[in-house]
Amino acid sequence: MSGEGNRQNDKDDSATAHIEAHAPAPAAASNGLRPRTATGGSIIDTTLSHPGSVRINVKGAFIVDLESTASNGRTGSPHNHETRDIRLPNHTAVVSHIAIDIGGSLAKLVYFSREAHSTEPGGRLNFVNFETDHISECLEFMRQLKRKYKKSNGSSPAELCVMATGGGAFKYYDMIRDVLGIDVLREDEMECLIIGLDFFITEIPGEVFTYSEADPMHFVTPADKVYPYLLVNIGSGVSFLKVSGPREYQRVGGTSLGGGTLWGLLSLLTGARTFDEMLDLASRGDNSKVDMLVGDIYGTDYGKIGLKSTTIASSFGKVFRKKRQAENEAEDSGGLGHYQHHSHNDHDDDHQPLSPSDAAITNSFSSLPDQGKSNGGSSRDPPFSGADISRSLLYAISNNIGQIAFLQSQIHGLSHIYFGGSFIRGHPQTMNTLSYAIKFWSKGAKQAYFLRHEGYLGAVGAFLKRQPRNWGRRGSFEEAALEERMRARASIGAKAAEQPEDASATGSGPGTGLARASSDAAIA
Amino acid sequence: MSGEGNRQNDKDDSATAHIEAHAPAPAAASNGLRPRTATGGSIIDTTLSHPGSVRINVKGAFIVDLESTASNGRTGSPHNHETRDIRLPNHTAVVSHIAIDIGGSLAKLVYFSREAHSTEPGGRLNFVNFETDHISECLEFMRQLKRKYKKSNGSSPAELCVMATGGGAFKYYDMIRDVLGIDVLREDEMECLIIGLDFFITEIPGEVFTYSEADPMHFVTPADKVYPYLLVNIGSGVSFLKVSGPREYQRVGGTSLGGGTLWGLLSLLTGARTFDEMLDLASRGDNSKVDMLVGDIYGTDYGKIGLKSTTIASSFGKVFRKKRQAENEAEDSGGLGHYQHHSHNDHDDDHQPLSPSDAAITNSFSSLPDQGKSNGGSSRDPPFSGADISRSLLYAISNNIGQIAFLQSQIHGLSHIYFGGSFIRGHPQTMNTLSYAIKFWSKGAKQAYFLRHEGYLGAVGAFLKRQPRNWGRRGSFEEAALEERMRARASIGAKAAEQPEDASATGSGPGTGLARASSDAAIA
Repeated sequence: MSGEGNRQNDKDDSATAHIEAHAPAPAAASNGLRPRTATGGSIIDTTLSHPGSVRINVKGAFIVDLESTASNGRTGSPHNHETRDIRLPNHTAVVSHIAIDIGGSLAKLVYFSREAHSTEPGGRLNFVNFETDHISECLEFMRQLKRKYKKSNGSSPAELCVMATGGGAFKYYDMIRDVLGIDVLREDEMECLIIGLDFFITEIPGEVFTYSEADPMHFVTPADKVYPYLLVNIGSGVSFLKVSGPREYQRVGGTSLGGGTLWGLLSLLTGARTFDEMLDLASRGDNSKVDMLVGDIYGTDYGKIGLKSTTIASSFGKVFRKKRQAENEAEDSGGLGHYQHHSHNDHDDDHQPLSPSDAAITNSFSSLPDQGKSNGGSSRDPPFSGADISRSLLYAISNNIGQIAFLQSQIHGLSHIYFGGSFIRGHPQTMNTLSYAIKFWSKGAKQAYFLRHEGYLGAVGAFLKRQPRNWGRRGSFEEAALEERMRARASIGAKAAEQPEDASATGSGPGTGLARASSDAAIA
Repeated sequence: MSGEGNRQNDKDDSATAHIEAHAPAPAAASNGLRPRTATGGSIIDTTLSHPGSVRINVKGAFIVDLESTASNGRTGSPHNHETRDIRLPNHTAVVSHIAIDIGGSLAKLVYFSREAHSTEPGGRLNFVNFETDHISECLEFMRQLKRKYKKSNGSSPAELCVMATGGGAFKYYDMIRDVLGIDVLREDEMECLIIGLDFFITEIPGEVFTYSEADPMHFVTPADKVYPYLLVNIGSGVSFLKVSGPREYQRVGGTSLGGGTLWGLLSLLTGARTFDEMLDLASRGDNSKVDMLVGDIYGTDYGKIGLKSTTIASSFGKVFRKKRQAENEAEDSGGLGHYQHHSHNDHDDDHQPLSPSDAAITNSFSSLPDQGKSNGGSSRDPPFSGADISRSLLYAISNNIGQIAFLQSQIHGLSHIYFGGSFIRGHPQTMNTLSYAIKFWSKGAKQAYFLRHEGYLGAVGAFLKRQPRNWGRRGSFEEAALEERMRARASIGAKAAEQPEDASATGSGPGTGLARASSDAAIA
């Protein structure tokens, strides 16, 4: 459980100065957030450029501390996964939209609110999620937001509208519009992901960090050379996006082994009933009870090809034998085909006594209980704990994603790998496994990055799609500035890219750049 | 279940002519083996070059039909997975060794035997496996072989010896030697794999085939250009080997998600108790009951990035919600944290009624039954069948291996991908998934190959390590010929390779070429 609770480090922040966006690279005190504060004063005039659209003033934006909450570390109390608000102390204009990213398992909502009972100016971005299965609760929440919006802005220039992305923006489009009587604008999921990520990278101090056991949450400041990078978005499934410049990206792959796989299998295999319970189980388990290690096979390491004895050779590789052993002990007779003679037409009588007949195997097969029934109905508990199983599966899924991420980054010449999506949940073992996998496979040449709002890339991206102009302190949404920055970054990227063709930024404007990519490995 | 039972096609073979090793490429009748036979006559003189070593005469070697057995298709009766013997009609000399490849789950044994009750000349290679857990049964089998060897060759020039490879060759080295009183020679696992594969590719007609639903078992004849290729060996875990020439290879990667993972998880999740029962379950299941498809998220396809509505977005992605739904229905009160409010310091009273307190989530967490207990102890059966679960997991594991194989082949410029190892077991869905994944990701540019003796590459490789000279009808073990062929193949390979450096055959002799490669993604 090394690294557990490290996110609590940022409790200690005292507000003194915010990190300048263009501050030189060496980032953050090694064990916590840099001190920062809201730069008071100079409130920039924010006007509505056209009805329903607004410039969000992010000057002095920072992530809100939770001084008053006892369990304020995201990992310290795993049943209480929190995503902190982002304070926008200088934003005063009315915000007339909310944004939602509806995935296969979770619907992520981002909205702006005033500090109702505070004397402080500005407001904050709020982050809240719902399970997609309970979309009606999400709709009810949005209805409340609408009511409040109308109450606060009786003379509002525009109706509240919803920026929607993710698959559910299509699946639930009619429902949202009809139930709320509200305009729904749909945005492409992948584009929203990278817009959201670019925002977090370039605009929010103390958002992006690297992870290692020795230095669990090492914040980084944005460098001028942001592109190219690989975004690995881990939700129910996983998408791999190669990002070459602002809004210039390609979905290069995907895998169906993602968060949904972990939650699904662990809900069948353990008593855990929430995601965070499963992560808590994992933090207490010992995967070597269920995984087959190199040492279990070799009795030692396999030094010739660099495999340590503690390397996992086969996830869950010990389960089959142990489970059957337990079953055999519980039965009187063996009868199971643990010995399979595959040689036929063998006339050597010496061999016959060792070979059980096919009929015997057939019998043991057909005498099974209901094969169509889940969980086997076995009354004998196998010698595995839910904690061990959880840890093994968490390792397996995380390692696998880390490996595919590395391979994709090799093929596309990318050395910066950002991991987003609701799978991560600030869980130390997950981040440690992903980070270690990248370091291990790349021999230290590539770096994994994580985010404190990792689950909200798409929702924030959709939220920002409503601000076409003048948005952000680096002018990232000013069209002229955008063009210029893209050209500058593309040229930096071209020099740095391992494979020249991968940095061929086309300089195309916002909203373009989505190429048809190879699709998921997972084929129905 | 398409393609089920296709291996029964080769029942129809009638022996008329064997495939010439140098026959031009267009291979095999589309729906079965080419007719073949043992070339009688001309028995080549096989002498012992030194004690304990022997030239194996493989002239006219062929895979034995099982005319007399009712269930002779490997897939028709899944409890009866058979690996056919290879007839060596022209080998007459004494063979003084047996070979064993002891993996994490299975010990694979290869030995030569005479046709005891036959008037035919020659003998055959026998293939038999044991579960590694029951290594004592394997030892007893070997003891019988030793007794028979002594009985048949009273004046034998050499004691029987064991060629051993795989991790168990180290773990059980002392045991084998002491129990059998026999010499044990250990060989490197990876080297044996590729020696065995090269043997099957170049020497055994009707061994290598491609798989598709329309043409399930399409045999291919060896071409002169064998190298370079990727070998994906799927046992308990998975190894990826880049092979540039005879005995010239590099382990470029591995994954812990292999056969052991499938067997282990399915033994926990279903009533199945043998590998083949699990595969039989899988053949009857419907993965869309447990997998989250793109259509489940979008309500349609995601055409912009080429994801069909039937694409698997998340393996087991439907399980979590369905299971909890069933549990909630069985309970009277909800109380589960299906709604997680992540916004804090939110002073908007309108939101409060929707947000359950953290305490409520905590309560539902702490009121769980024993979290350390496997299978949750739930008495309510979730709405999943073992068949659906088996099919989903088989798809997930196979797709994942296929995807990593493709990515590795991209990085190393390889277009021929051979799948070996005991995971495959001639199972149509497994082969179809692997084959389809390669075709899909490579857009048809790369080809997956399978073998009828897929589980015995290492054991055969170890067996052949005992024949240093004059072995094989293509002279593949003659040193001079070997050198020449390596040079020829390296130059062909260099032309064909996508990345020039990948074909840099060094021309080094047998036994060299093992480079330290990057290791498994799976890290303990």
